[in-house]
Amino acid sequence: MPPMARPQAPPIGIRRWTSRGWMEAGDLVAAEEPLQLLLDGSPLSIVMRTPGHDLELALGLLWAERVITALSDVAGVRISAEADEQEAALEVDPGLIESNQVDVHLRSGPTRRPERSFLSSSACGVCGATTVESLALDFARLPAGPKFDPAILPSLAQRLREGQAVFEQTGGLHAAGLFDTTGRLLLLREDVGRHNAVDKVVGRRLLDGLLPASESILAASGRAGYEVVQKSVAAGIPVLVAVGAPSSLAVLTARQFNLTLVGFLKRDGFNVYSGAERLSSD
Amino acid sequence: MPPMARPQAPPIGIRRWTSRGWMEAGDLVAAEEPLQLLLDGSPLSIVMRTPGHDLELALGLLWAERVITALSDVAGVRISAEADEQEAALEVDPGLIESNQVDVHLRSGPTRRPERSFLSSSACGVCGATTVESLALDFARLPAGPKFDPAILPSLAQRLREGQAVFEQTGGLHAAGLFDTTGRLLLLREDVGRHNAVDKVVGRRLLDGLLPASESILAASGRAGYEVVQKSVAAGIPVLVAVGAPSSLAVLTARQFNLTLVGFLKRDGFNVYSGAERLSSD
Repeated sequence: MPPMARPQAPPIGIRRWTSRGWMEAGDLVAAEEPLQLLLDGSPLSIVMRTPGHDLELALGLLWAERVITALSDVAGVRISAEADEQEAALEVDPGLIESNQVDVHLRSGPTRRPERSFLSSSACGVCGATTVESLALDFARLPAGPKFDPAILPSLAQRLREGQAVFEQTGGLHAAGLFDTTGRLLLLREDVGRHNAVDKVVGRRLLDGLLPASESILAASGRAGYEVVQKSVAAGIPVLVAVGAPSSLAVLTARQFNLTLVGFLKRDGFNVYSGAERLSSD
Repeated sequence: MPPMARPQAPPIGIRRWTSRGWMEAGDLVAAEEPLQLLLDGSPLSIVMRTPGHDLELALGLLWAERVITALSDVAGVRISAEADEQEAALEVDPGLIESNQVDVHLRSGPTRRPERSFLSSSACGVCGATTVESLALDFARLPAGPKFDPAILPSLAQRLREGQAVFEQTGGLHAAGLFDTTGRLLLLREDVGRHNAVDKVVGRRLLDGLLPASESILAASGRAGYEVVQKSVAAGIPVLVAVGAPSSLAVLTARQFNLTLVGFLKRDGFNVYSGAERLSSD
């Protein structure tokens, strides 16, 4: 299978904490990489996605946005040879483009020209980068510290849920909570979008003159993708704890910026993907 | 509490199916509404979010994107009076702007001018609309039919999971599966982004000359927000079944476009938020 069609990243070494102590472990995480979508050679969008079926993704996105309304609107597609995507129905030129790019050429201009402004979704956080290379380059590496007792973490998921008045009624809201290093809840925000909940927490701290939030822990419901990691780094929050799974790009970015990244937070333990040195019972 | 600060929508009437039959019920869903973010009076972005703490959201998003790097970069904010957000730290003019808008005025232009192209996240689907009013106006209402036996639905969540080879290993992937009206799996795609998985399904159908997918059922892991509903409508898929909760805007949009929207799909039943007439055991 070619590298681009790989829906999971190579196994990585992690540390796993339970009340019985630490252990080293290997873990598989879902692959997340940016895909740059071009229209007639011009950059249109960058989508964080799991590699594989990139041609389908590009066409499906253009279809939903009414840029194309029939397959015959597409004159041809350029895609990386690594993607290994060929289609009888369409002229596909593999190998004529860099990795993680799809360039869709239209027969006669878009049916509907995509608007220049962008609509971020409930869960959209990384907006503004025009090339894959420009992602995540504007932030400083987080300084060392603080250190805190790993035993405080398992209770955070429960405290996050307890603070979520609305979730109990609707089952439909994400939460982001900021805790101090003793596990005390400082601030909680809910939203249909996980990234919005994080933005609201960071916005509150900005209004209160409390950024960077360097002595705090951000706990988030759901999974940890690249963008939640990026938002933590931007706010100077050194520890991100997710109830769900991290993505490969979240792990890479956390390691690059010295963020402590915890995933699969459960009552009896959690996985540490990056920055385990902040978790110390000394 | 003002309308804008309401994190849940008013109760709605739904139908609930279990193996013992149908019942009428009331349900609370999480509120989702678009927020238009303006910078110095110019539209910058539309974010699907839960109303409330909109000022925090706007500032947190601008902070993460490095448009502002200090609160003092902000000269003032215009926000709807409904939002009822006032801040000692900032000049906030309530009532000078329409609902669901926040206009952030900078002291001396953005530190970093947001790029014109946009970066859709893993879960970003609605890109291109420049005003709240332009959302969802380009699609035709779905025609009546098909009818199918509601008893086939509870097994779809299990079949979706069985088809997810990678999820089993990583716990980190969303899935979208297209089924026929007897519950047979036609197509399954996985991705870190729920919307990407749906785009891949739709892109595959486009490549195969099989759009609109008018005799099929789309099952999606996770929650159903506005954008997944919009993608179903765009592809002519008349039935969307989500394992998790729908949002208020998802329900409104489904009703507007005659989409059958099912949420909280479980082994023993599910909720129908829209288009129950397609579910018939006749």
